[in-house]
Amino acid sequence: MKLLIKVRYDGSRFNGSQVQPGLPTVQGELTAAAREIFGFDCDITGCSRTDAGVHALSYCAAVSPRDADAENDWCPVPIGKVPRAFNSKLPASIAVLGACEVDRSFHPRYDVKSKEYVYLISDSCVRDPFLVSRAWQTGRPLKDENIAAMQRACSGFIGKHDFRSFMASGSEVSDTTREIFSLTVFRGGDGIIRITVSADGFLYNMVRIIAGTLLDVGYGKIGEDDISLIIESRDRSRAGMTAPPEGLYLSEVRYNKTIDWVFE
Amino acid sequence: MKLLIKVRYDGSRFNGSQVQPGLPTVQGELTAAAREIFGFDCDITGCSRTDAGVHALSYCAAVSPRDADAENDWCPVPIGKVPRAFNSKLPASIAVLGACEVDRSFHPRYDVKSKEYVYLISDSCVRDPFLVSRAWQTGRPLKDENIAAMQRACSGFIGKHDFRSFMASGSEVSDTTREIFSLTVFRGGDGIIRITVSADGFLYNMVRIIAGTLLDVGYGKIGEDDISLIIESRDRSRAGMTAPPEGLYLSEVRYNKTIDWVFE
Repeated sequence: MKLLIKVRYDGSRFNGSQVQPGLPTVQGELTAAAREIFGFDCDITGCSRTDAGVHALSYCAAVSPRDADAENDWCPVPIGKVPRAFNSKLPASIAVLGACEVDRSFHPRYDVKSKEYVYLISDSCVRDPFLVSRAWQTGRPLKDENIAAMQRACSGFIGKHDFRSFMASGSEVSDTTREIFSLTVFRGGDGIIRITVSADGFLYNMVRIIAGTLLDVGYGKIGEDDISLIIESRDRSRAGMTAPPEGLYLSEVRYNKTIDWVFE
Repeated sequence: MKLLIKVRYDGSRFNGSQVQPGLPTVQGELTAAAREIFGFDCDITGCSRTDAGVHALSYCAAVSPRDADAENDWCPVPIGKVPRAFNSKLPASIAVLGACEVDRSFHPRYDVKSKEYVYLISDSCVRDPFLVSRAWQTGRPLKDENIAAMQRACSGFIGKHDFRSFMASGSEVSDTTREIFSLTVFRGGDGIIRITVSADGFLYNMVRIIAGTLLDVGYGKIGEDDISLIIESRDRSRAGMTAPPEGLYLSEVRYNKTIDWVFE
């Protein structure tokens, strides 16, 4: 068996999700906690790589013993108690919200059916100390009509497309086709603009480039009807800027099978 | 003239509001920023002292030149531009939200008519990395009926009383009578419990002891009808624990005169 855990973290405290020697990372913290709990080394396999400063409301990671012989019934902790066991060892900036037992064949990245990200923008002209490292504070207010233009531009992204224009240059992925299931822009009661996007997968920096492009639509630098042309061009330089990492939250990961998270 | 500024800060970054040599404080940052903007030393007088870790959504401070000769028309920056001038010099964890010109005789502490504080409690059994240093995470859920008991207990606090039972021991204030105008407990849509209290003034740690006492009512350790008895006892040991600083926010300061805040 494998353990699957659901993790929430404040990305401002970490140099991304993947292990980097000498730097605090989410994977590094989970690996150290697992060793303390189980008394042996475990492999931690995440559902995706998040960059330094990027947050997760719900990140999934598989935990399995590094020693292949230890695969059956290796977990001495009742599954429902696993989250608290992790939380007692992890720093306060990461929390395990639930755990579940999955098959040995389950892969937290390859078995993903869809992922959802939220990108937060504060357009207030007054900066907010409580949004430092938690939202993109642009300092440049958007009117209702600007938000409406961003909302209309969303439809151009929906569907299965080659999203090469929305991939960081230098990335070496061969298949750049992805399907975006939904994309919405909405200003909440707190004044914060929330961009929510769900897809079967994302290219490197794709959400941040979509956020930057939508903001350019809001500011009138990109036409609301130009999204299809930008996608068709397959040219990164036609899309908007890459929005900074601090506004980005991995908010949900869905799998083909139902995961019954437990927390006792 | 004096300048009055409205300040918001994330208290987790500071060792309180008052200057302490060698430690980052709100007053220290404002003093350094004022010196950079105006080119001479200024006195910064705050509306109250907040402890290390305590936040402010709206803190007021007066700025005046230390050199008494420089009192008239000493501010070379148009009043509406003062907030941005400060914000360009201050760390991101403090922001000036507005400025106003006041008389030389105005005192940001003695002229206070009422102050409002908010105390945030998260009672979820799963800790939230995004609430670290921003709420009291008790880890012990409260039911609706517990919250209702806390709400009923609030009425015992309202009015003019000697609040010695709700003052940190060791404090040397002689007049411990204060008038509480309103006190409410409310669970928001985000699940966070908000205690909001408004009074003509507060004793040292008074809001944190009220929050700790209300939580004890919620957990059944203190009866909801016992508040008046605790107040009458004038005995600190009868009240509940002092809630930790991270949940406390100074949320509003009202003066006898109307302050017309400007931000350009």
